[in-house]
Amino acid sequence: MVAPGRRIRVALAYDGTGYHGWQVQPGLATIQGVVENALGRVLGGVPVRVRGAGRTDAGVHARMQVADARIDSHLDDAAIERALAAVLPADVRPWSVRTAPTEFDARRSALSKTYVYRIERSRHGDPFEARFALHHPFPLDLAAMHDALARLPGRRDWSGFASAACEVEDRVRHLMEARWVEDGSSRAAFVFRADGFLTHMVRALVGTVLEVARGRFRPDRIDAVLATGDRSLAGATAPPHGLCLHRVEYGGDDGTDEDLAPPAATMAALLR
Amino acid sequence: MVAPGRRIRVALAYDGTGYHGWQVQPGLATIQGVVENALGRVLGGVPVRVRGAGRTDAGVHARMQVADARIDSHLDDAAIERALAAVLPADVRPWSVRTAPTEFDARRSALSKTYVYRIERSRHGDPFEARFALHHPFPLDLAAMHDALARLPGRRDWSGFASAACEVEDRVRHLMEARWVEDGSSRAAFVFRADGFLTHMVRALVGTVLEVARGRFRPDRIDAVLATGDRSLAGATAPPHGLCLHRVEYGGDDGTDEDLAPPAATMAALLR
Repeated sequence: MVAPGRRIRVALAYDGTGYHGWQVQPGLATIQGVVENALGRVLGGVPVRVRGAGRTDAGVHARMQVADARIDSHLDDAAIERALAAVLPADVRPWSVRTAPTEFDARRSALSKTYVYRIERSRHGDPFEARFALHHPFPLDLAAMHDALARLPGRRDWSGFASAACEVEDRVRHLMEARWVEDGSSRAAFVFRADGFLTHMVRALVGTVLEVARGRFRPDRIDAVLATGDRSLAGATAPPHGLCLHRVEYGGDDGTDEDLAPPAATMAALLR
Repeated sequence: MVAPGRRIRVALAYDGTGYHGWQVQPGLATIQGVVENALGRVLGGVPVRVRGAGRTDAGVHARMQVADARIDSHLDDAAIERALAAVLPADVRPWSVRTAPTEFDARRSALSKTYVYRIERSRHGDPFEARFALHHPFPLDLAAMHDALARLPGRRDWSGFASAACEVEDRVRHLMEARWVEDGSSRAAFVFRADGFLTHMVRALVGTVLEVARGRFRPDRIDAVLATGDRSLAGATAPPHGLCLHRVEYGGDDGTDEDLAPPAATMAALLR
C-alpha cells in the first residue's frame, strides 16, 4: 500500500543547453518548470511545486540534480518514475523517484554539492565535447594553477567570486575541495565541492584560476580577491556550458539510498 | 619552401547529427560539401574536390575521418590547418593537415577502418549520450551476444548484411574484429574493424546481434544470414546516431605520421 500523501525525492540529469536554468521564470523554458509540468501531468493534472538542491544557471548541466515535492497520489514510486520518464523531454531525464521522509528538503538536507567544470584542450576543438566543455587550447602553467587551487578551500566569505546579481546576505560558505583532474587525453576538469555556492561562484573561480594558468595573474591574486572581496580583481565569469552539477551529497539518513548513489567520483565520470 | 602543387591529407572529427552524411548531394548539407567549401575558401576561392576514407551515412559521426585533396597553394600545412579550423563549423573539426605522397588516397591507401556503435543502457536515458549512443535499456544475454559476435570475423560475402541500396558488385570484405566493450557503467559499445564495409553493414550487424542479445534470434542466425546472403533473415538496421567512424588505419608509409595517430583504442576512448 502506498501512502497517497507523501514527499518524494526525484534524482535527474539534464543537458541544460536549451534551458534558462533551473528556476521557474515566466515565459521561459526552465528545468524546474519542465519538471513541475511533467509531474503535474503524471499526478493527474494537479499543480505541483518542486524544490531543487542546486539552482543551476542558464546553459548549465546536471548529472545529478535532486528535487523534492509534496504529492498526493496512489501511484507508487516506480510508476511515477516510469511515467515521468515517458513525459519528460530527451534532454531532461529522471533516474530515480523515491518516497522520502516528510522533512526531506532537497537543498537544506544536502551536506554538500559537487560541481564539475569541463575543459577541452585539443587544438581545434572536439565536436563531441562542444556542448559540455569549454574549448581552451592554450598552454596551462599547471604548477601555478595547482598553487592557486590550493589557496581556495576553507570556510570563507566568497563575495569576491560572487556575481553582482547575488542577493544573499551571508556569503560565507565552506569549500571542501578545489582540484584539477586530467587523464592524458584532451579532456580535463575542475572539481569544486562545498556546502553551498553563491551565484556564478564556480564560473568566477574557473575564470580566475585559468588566468593564473595562462600567466596573466599570479597565484596570490586568489588571496587578494578573498581578502578584499573585490570582484573586479578576479577573472571573467567562465561560460556556462562547461559547468555541470555533478552530484549532491546527503548524510544517508534523510532520503538517500543506493538508488541515489551518485555517479562514482572516478576520473572517467568526472571527465565524462 | 612549400611545394604549391601537392596532395594534402586532412584528418577530421564531426558530430554528424545535422548532416546528410559524408557524400556531396545537391541541395543538402553534407560533410564532404562543408569540407570542400571550407578548403576552397582557404585556398582563395578555387573549387576543391576531397576524397574521404569512409562514406558515413546521414546522422553518423566520425572521431577520425581522413580526406585527401590535390591542391595548388603557397600556404604551408599548418597555415591551411589553422585557416580550415577558423572556417569550418563547430560540429566539423579538423585536427591535422599534412602534405602526403602524391599517390595517397584516403580510401584506397587505408588498410582498415574501425567503426564503433555506442549503446547507452541506463533505465531512462542519459541526456549527455543522447546524440551519440543508442538508448537500449533492455536486459542483454551477454553469452549469446558474444557467441554471435564470434561467428562474424573472416573474409566473407556480406550481402546478408548490406542495404538494398548497396550498389557494389563485389561484396567480399575482410572483417578482422567484432567485439563488445563495457566498463561497468551504463555505456557500452560494439567495435568492428574491416578492410571495407558495405552500405549500412555495421548498423545491420548491430541490429542483428541485439536481436540475439534479447533472445529473439539464436546465435546461429548469424550463420544463416552469412550462408544465404538473405537480408530478410537479419535484424533491423540500427539507427545512425549510435554509429561513429572511430579511426582509419594506414600502413605508416603513405601519408601517416604521428599527427595521424588515431585516438587510442582504449576502453575510455571507445566508450568516449
